[in-house]
Amino acid sequence: MRTFGEIDGVSPGDLFDSRESLAKANIHPPLVAGISGGKNEGADSIVLSGGYEDDEDFGSVIIYTGAGGQKNGKQISDQELDGVNLALAKSKIENLPVRVTRGHKHKHELSPTKGYRYAGLYNVESYWYETGKSGYKVWRYRLIAQESLPTTDYIVKEPTGEYDAPGRKSSTVNRIVRNYQKAKNVKSWHDYKCQVCGIAIETSAGFYAEAAHIKPLGEPHNGPDIESNLLCLCPNHHVMFDNGGFAISDKLELIGIEGKLRVVKKHLINIEFIKYHREHYLKNA
Amino acid sequence: MRTFGEIDGVSPGDLFDSRESLAKANIHPPLVAGISGGKNEGADSIVLSGGYEDDEDFGSVIIYTGAGGQKNGKQISDQELDGVNLALAKSKIENLPVRVTRGHKHKHELSPTKGYRYAGLYNVESYWYETGKSGYKVWRYRLIAQESLPTTDYIVKEPTGEYDAPGRKSSTVNRIVRNYQKAKNVKSWHDYKCQVCGIAIETSAGFYAEAAHIKPLGEPHNGPDIESNLLCLCPNHHVMFDNGGFAISDKLELIGIEGKLRVVKKHLINIEFIKYHREHYLKNA
Repeated sequence: MRTFGEIDGVSPGDLFDSRESLAKANIHPPLVAGISGGKNEGADSIVLSGGYEDDEDFGSVIIYTGAGGQKNGKQISDQELDGVNLALAKSKIENLPVRVTRGHKHKHELSPTKGYRYAGLYNVESYWYETGKSGYKVWRYRLIAQESLPTTDYIVKEPTGEYDAPGRKSSTVNRIVRNYQKAKNVKSWHDYKCQVCGIAIETSAGFYAEAAHIKPLGEPHNGPDIESNLLCLCPNHHVMFDNGGFAISDKLELIGIEGKLRVVKKHLINIEFIKYHREHYLKNA
Repeated sequence: MRTFGEIDGVSPGDLFDSRESLAKANIHPPLVAGISGGKNEGADSIVLSGGYEDDEDFGSVIIYTGAGGQKNGKQISDQELDGVNLALAKSKIENLPVRVTRGHKHKHELSPTKGYRYAGLYNVESYWYETGKSGYKVWRYRLIAQESLPTTDYIVKEPTGEYDAPGRKSSTVNRIVRNYQKAKNVKSWHDYKCQVCGIAIETSAGFYAEAAHIKPLGEPHNGPDIESNLLCLCPNHHVMFDNGGFAISDKLELIGIEGKLRVVKKHLINIEFIKYHREHYLKNA
């Protein structure tokens, strides 16, 4: 199974001597391909290795180029939004984190002088196509670092000859780590159809839906990140739900707008969370 | 006119000796009220001054309490989502930045020992109500700092007796500063109705719409942040527009979905931007 997000025991800045050791650590499973992913699941990791002339690396922002259409390192035909290219677009519409690694052949101050350096998690902010330097169509992805990089002290000292004993860097960022798999489960159970209006949003990377927390995460609500605290909603009904536009009765009738919550057997919703939301967000409850 | 966002010549960390000097600097215009704002425009600033027992301050996350229902510093009745309370909720649904200032009476390590310290811009992430410590209903707002605070070096040394000659702290964050007024103009011109489907999303703080950039901001697109590069869209059509779900012809017909873009006279759209979007985002253009 594909792993999204951080890998236990590996920290941003860690060094690897080869693609084999990167793969063994599960940071980037494929041994040759720059993108690890499946078109239905999304992409879990990329490696910047200097192979694509159109890549641009601003550190915490990376403009990455899709795969394909190359022969002997030259772009000789158009790229398609399929395979791993579609996987990276899927990571955008699923809001999945992508592990980014820089190789020594990728010319950048954050690249290691040899081997590979894991850079941390990025999000795909957008994807589009354009005519690359070659004259052929290439797919492009704008990736943003989840934690902005302190450019100087980020470059940890490379232990000479000790690639597999990386130093740790502690982080004190107070970020809420979301469980991507649980969000995806809920969306899949509903076929990406909104539990209020039944609409599934269409994009060039497939259907889009949002997993909305019923009792919010974080202080002071501290709702749990579990399926029974999630709804599958279209963006419109997500905005309304989060901002007092409607709430849900204990019998799953909608309050504030017409209708009843659409349910599927697999997806059990905890009525306690529904009640919490109703008693904190609906203005005239 | 109410100013949203940073004030020229004032930096986070700057100190002020009184509410008068805070008001004079335009950081927080009212002399007594904790919230500066109008229910139709949104709130532009708040001051934490220890007056509300339910306030919680985690530094880069603040749980702030709405105004009203107090007598002699005690909560004696329910608060309403109106006036400045509605203004703060409006800042949430309009995604407006709120200037935050801490006063010496607000017990916190980031508060100054005397006077007031401007903390910088926060966004209202959510609003809800609950029963406060008093037993009465209070409105609550979760504010998140736009730039996460380095907790130690943030506390700049206080110049003794020289509150009005604040030291500057330079910032190197590569953030795209959006023009809030232009986004608001476009949404107002369309009465918050989506230019694709005509729907205006309803929330407890009023109508909600999104100002979508046609040619995106930032590298490598570098679209401008001006009205002729913005569309007023509902969240659903914004997601579709940004992810290849549809594009727009030079005659403003929709491509990929049925219909024609809804227009109003005041809002001139630059066809160059429409073309850029179409030629970079629509998969089968």
